[in-house]
Amino acid sequence: MSQYAFGVDIGGTTVKLGLFDVEGALLDKWEIPTRKENKGQEILPDVAKSILQKMEDNKISQSEVKGIGVGAPGAVDSEGTMVGGAVNLGWDVFNLPAALKNYIDVPVVAGNDANVAAFGEMWMGGGRGYKNMVAVTLGTGVGGGIIVDGRMLVGATGAGGEVGHIHLNDEETEACGCKNKGCLEQYASATGIVRLAKRRLAKDAKPSVLREGEISAKTVFDAVKAKDEVAIEIAEQFGDYLGRGLATIADVVNPEIFVIGGGVSKAGEILLDYVKPAFEKYVFYPCKGAKFALATLGNDAGIYGACAMVIQAGK
Amino acid sequence: MSQYAFGVDIGGTTVKLGLFDVEGALLDKWEIPTRKENKGQEILPDVAKSILQKMEDNKISQSEVKGIGVGAPGAVDSEGTMVGGAVNLGWDVFNLPAALKNYIDVPVVAGNDANVAAFGEMWMGGGRGYKNMVAVTLGTGVGGGIIVDGRMLVGATGAGGEVGHIHLNDEETEACGCKNKGCLEQYASATGIVRLAKRRLAKDAKPSVLREGEISAKTVFDAVKAKDEVAIEIAEQFGDYLGRGLATIADVVNPEIFVIGGGVSKAGEILLDYVKPAFEKYVFYPCKGAKFALATLGNDAGIYGACAMVIQAGK
Repeated sequence: MSQYAFGVDIGGTTVKLGLFDVEGALLDKWEIPTRKENKGQEILPDVAKSILQKMEDNKISQSEVKGIGVGAPGAVDSEGTMVGGAVNLGWDVFNLPAALKNYIDVPVVAGNDANVAAFGEMWMGGGRGYKNMVAVTLGTGVGGGIIVDGRMLVGATGAGGEVGHIHLNDEETEACGCKNKGCLEQYASATGIVRLAKRRLAKDAKPSVLREGEISAKTVFDAVKAKDEVAIEIAEQFGDYLGRGLATIADVVNPEIFVIGGGVSKAGEILLDYVKPAFEKYVFYPCKGAKFALATLGNDAGIYGACAMVIQAGK
Repeated sequence: MSQYAFGVDIGGTTVKLGLFDVEGALLDKWEIPTRKENKGQEILPDVAKSILQKMEDNKISQSEVKGIGVGAPGAVDSEGTMVGGAVNLGWDVFNLPAALKNYIDVPVVAGNDANVAAFGEMWMGGGRGYKNMVAVTLGTGVGGGIIVDGRMLVGATGAGGEVGHIHLNDEETEACGCKNKGCLEQYASATGIVRLAKRRLAKDAKPSVLREGEISAKTVFDAVKAKDEVAIEIAEQFGDYLGRGLATIADVVNPEIFVIGGGVSKAGEILLDYVKPAFEKYVFYPCKGAKFALATLGNDAGIYGACAMVIQAGK
């Protein structure tokens, strides 16, 4: 009789929620604020209250709810325990499904938000139809999630698929946020592209539209589209680093497809034009030919993936 | 009523076979030659004949055999199809379980030999008790196998865990067997260590026992044990490359443990002394603290892993 599932994506500012049918159709979505006061103790009761309200509004009984899936920012093991807590939310170590079930008595599953978003992209987004997928999110940092044979790769400490800190460059002099030097994130994130751009512009005085105004990943790729030569050089550098990083990932997990998301991916297909040649250059030959796609679910990937976890858990 | 399982490890020269009980005790092991004539068409009938003979000798009926697991050299997908054939054996693309069942009517499962050996080390060897493991084999080349949550990571084309061709060094001038330059295998294999040693010895005239006689991975690590300063420098270089390669793998799949096998690992625990510091230096902090162990099953890892596949398939 279970006809519905809820997907929950807990972020630092808002919690996104989705009501789905068990075929994966998103029937309703909404947000509530993430109340971080009191060490984040209000967050799960707020989530439960919001879901119970939605059930009442839609005359959905508890027996009709297959479960609630939750994506949370932090390392989450395969039992749903926040093994390292969640600094952004004020959370210590605890088991999320057990805690949420104190407030609402339906099955609960939980995972790391990046892994859950990857799972969503496989279920209903850019990776639809594939079972071996790597999702890479190019935002302020570089995150990711890996799906192996249709299952999330969680890893020993919940850091599976956190590929932003693969070491790529021995010559790097600036430190990454993780304290190492030469991480993928230093070149392929939004801030990484700005860094590459500033370095390139400082090298000589070659004219470029990028010399006027503020530089961002968007202005760089807009300039590439306008055939700005300096911007093209920057995109080639970015593509070389990201392509090499993805080749390394492919050498390890041999995916069918890479799904690229995050703010930087808004540049569109042109981004892939710079990544694919470098990937093919560096990757071990049996792993050549992996497909590349852009993420399609945007900020809804988390609620989709959380719902997909509920549906998979029932199988 | 199934009390027995057979593990089969098909190599280029011999086929290793093992008779196990379903608790994983190895009751008997033996070898037959790998007959590669006639495009390798004799190999599977030979395997079936040898197993049927062993069953007759031990009065084991077909209903008492839970199944046969087979490790084969080449890319094998999750259905047991040799997706790229097996050049060493003369095999084209075909489904191995279906083919073997033409000669012996019991359940058959198959996997890539390196992945299967990794699975064996997790089941009864250096990785016993862990579910998230990376096995790395340092032999003539560098191979590997990855276990995620107790399952083999096969990958899109069966190349999952083939970590020898991770790119590590932009400055490398010599080509790897795969045609790229700067692969892990060029530094961490038996031949890679010899290359590192020759380069180091050519650099100056510093005295070393390695200047006499032939150099091998064994002579290098024997000299390290004898506190030869040049050998120690070579081991540090080797450890830096391998530690960095393993850090990269950990950044992707976040294992609980690395199990190091192959001929080079015969150097013993001292090898790990050179690898661990480099690993900890390069790895992303949530993946620090992964354990390291030496493989313990040696050449029997393949038959153990093949048997483990049978037992897992029945669950």
